[in-house]
Amino acid sequence: MRNMTGAPRFLPPKIIEVIIADLVFNVDGLIPAVSQQHDSGEVLMMAWMNTDAVRETLATGHVCYWSRSRQRLWRKGETSGNVQRLIDFRYDCDADTILLLIDQTGAACHTNRPNCFYHAVRPDGVVKLTEPMA
Amino acid sequence: MRNMTGAPRFLPPKIIEVIIADLVFNVDGLIPAVSQQHDSGEVLMMAWMNTDAVRETLATGHVCYWSRSRQRLWRKGETSGNVQRLIDFRYDCDADTILLLIDQTGAACHTNRPNCFYHAVRPDGVVKLTEPMA
Repeated sequence: MRNMTGAPRFLPPKIIEVIIADLVFNVDGLIPAVSQQHDSGEVLMMAWMNTDAVRETLATGHVCYWSRSRQRLWRKGETSGNVQRLIDFRYDCDADTILLLIDQTGAACHTNRPNCFYHAVRPDGVVKLTEPMA
Repeated sequence: MRNMTGAPRFLPPKIIEVIIADLVFNVDGLIPAVSQQHDSGEVLMMAWMNTDAVRETLATGHVCYWSRSRQRLWRKGETSGNVQRLIDFRYDCDADTILLLIDQTGAACHTNRPNCFYHAVRPDGVVKLTEPMA
């Protein structure tokens, strides 16, 4: 599907509004979104979306979150170039958590690691599983 | 490592308290925990933990959440038998989200589906990817 400028669109506006109406946002108007690399299955990060972030993600096919610290839309990769291209948008039984299957460019984590979940507990303490990418 | 009754323990108490001190709980005293089947990479569900749930999970090696609806500890599988055996406990860069690598017995979802993320958006609406297990 293409919009009037010829750019591809991920989903038509009418369906996007149906999905937004079905999702359950918390008292702050946010819903958690877990992202997973679509082919490897690697869980990359967890961030939050508001209705505008969901709308933009589903319209453009590029993942947009809501930054709680900056209180504005956070187009993932807007400064780093490490964008997340949306492959599939899923949500859970209670419609209060999103699972994004994506294709990640570069590092998902702001520490420049491939994913954010690099702390692992071991019998003698916490280890870091990865180092920042070169 | 085994406790005094001979049952295996996942982690020693001293390390558990170090980890709890490192984790960032929200204003309600909770932290989101995403669970992933350790071998297939399937993302199963997202639920919440408080300090006691983290403590019990790391001590026993069986996943325990905090049920927000019931306001009590929720030992996953306590009624259904669909327990989650902990394989690895990881957390993210900001220490405010947990990723549990687990071995799931039976269905992870309360709808008796293998995982909770069975809603998928398509250009003509939302589809269900799986049906409840027989």
